[in-house]
Amino acid sequence: MGNAVYGLRSAPEVRAMMRQGVSAPTQGVCEGNVQANLAILPKQYAYDFLLFCYRNPKPCPILDVTDPGSPTTRLAKGADLRTDLPKYRVYESGNYVAEVTDISTYWSSDLVAFVIGCSYTFEAALLAGGVPVRHIEQGTVVPMYTSNIQCAPAGVFSGPTVITMRPIPYELVTKAVQITSRYPGVHGAPVHIGDPAHVGVDLNKPEYGGQLSEIRKGETPVFWACGVTPQAVAQKSKIPLMITHAPGHMFITDIRNEHLAAL
Amino acid sequence: MGNAVYGLRSAPEVRAMMRQGVSAPTQGVCEGNVQANLAILPKQYAYDFLLFCYRNPKPCPILDVTDPGSPTTRLAKGADLRTDLPKYRVYESGNYVAEVTDISTYWSSDLVAFVIGCSYTFEAALLAGGVPVRHIEQGTVVPMYTSNIQCAPAGVFSGPTVITMRPIPYELVTKAVQITSRYPGVHGAPVHIGDPAHVGVDLNKPEYGGQLSEIRKGETPVFWACGVTPQAVAQKSKIPLMITHAPGHMFITDIRNEHLAAL
Repeated sequence: MGNAVYGLRSAPEVRAMMRQGVSAPTQGVCEGNVQANLAILPKQYAYDFLLFCYRNPKPCPILDVTDPGSPTTRLAKGADLRTDLPKYRVYESGNYVAEVTDISTYWSSDLVAFVIGCSYTFEAALLAGGVPVRHIEQGTVVPMYTSNIQCAPAGVFSGPTVITMRPIPYELVTKAVQITSRYPGVHGAPVHIGDPAHVGVDLNKPEYGGQLSEIRKGETPVFWACGVTPQAVAQKSKIPLMITHAPGHMFITDIRNEHLAAL
Repeated sequence: MGNAVYGLRSAPEVRAMMRQGVSAPTQGVCEGNVQANLAILPKQYAYDFLLFCYRNPKPCPILDVTDPGSPTTRLAKGADLRTDLPKYRVYESGNYVAEVTDISTYWSSDLVAFVIGCSYTFEAALLAGGVPVRHIEQGTVVPMYTSNIQCAPAGVFSGPTVITMRPIPYELVTKAVQITSRYPGVHGAPVHIGDPAHVGVDLNKPEYGGQLSEIRKGETPVFWACGVTPQAVAQKSKIPLMITHAPGHMFITDIRNEHLAAL
């Protein structure tokens, strides 16, 4: 398999390429390694954000929180979170103001980085368990929707849960719940099974760049909480600065997917 | 079964008794309901403490965090955390200064309460699964030890993990791991199986009021992280004020144990 840009290089090698300015999506890179979302905020908002994630572990499964001003993480030896992602987005007061490949000029001793689990890990487990993942089969972006499931608010942060949909054959729904339950660190078990309207979703109107996956006869839509939720919530709060990874341009950790199955 | 003082009353009824001043240990009260540890700190230290708990989920499994100044929790309808525990301990700058049945006079809009999982829940699951729990059989206090397992530090908080020991028959060790793995919110899976010295423990010297449980032929000592850890760590940090439940005098929630098995 591998990836057209990054090939079959190791995680430290891939991060070194990114540090040198290589910038491409990370789907399929370092297969079996945990890829992660990134959200960087001023320390002043870190408590509310951490509490928000605690209260909403399905959309916001935190894998690591850095000390203020520290760009290092226990998830990747030698990594620098300011340079080692392929692309970042910068938001000021909730507005998207820049897309960059290096955030060193924005960095300060006041910033805290949250490394947040991503669905790639549980999708790998689903595939390994014989559960098909349609958008991977078809090379499209997973469909994402703003649901009517309200997150538990914390301080300045509140808003609805963003969810993803995967069509699952009826005979594999229980297995899909079981497999993803083993990975609470990457969104865990589904938040809804069966009726899009029940969670406020019109399947034909995906958001955030996602595309509706084909739902075949004998399949039912299954919904999981999505890592876009904390970003959407942070933007809505209009905090003065937030930096995130750019969509599809994830942080490549040294941790293997299977490690997250242990509690 | 029930309890000599509280009888077979419901959780709201038991909390009302406590609010009126009834003060007795809670072992066996409202069987099947989650009982919880309590730690109350000034908001100024809440971020470091929350992060510490995040980084050390086995000793510090948080079930709820209140908003600053709010004495209510989503875990128990109508409960007031200032009055609805049977006994509290007050620590100033790390020193134990008072034991009281009501903390209203200490309360301020600046305080944050952390409700933390307790081993009673996973012990109930072990017993239900046919795994014996010796200190319950013998009516003693679980043996607790300061281990050589260092917690991941966070801000002002650092220190070793306090652990509990339960002797488990060899043929039930795997089952004990499986059952407790289902309950990450109440310390989860063991931190060590088999060799006390490996984790820095002298079995004959339990701390914190625990008593060595009899280890029979064909049994091995199994160690779990203990909820005393966050209290020990907070005391060591000498923060100006911390209020906790008194040992054995837990907070009775409305949540059933089984609810914590769902992730």
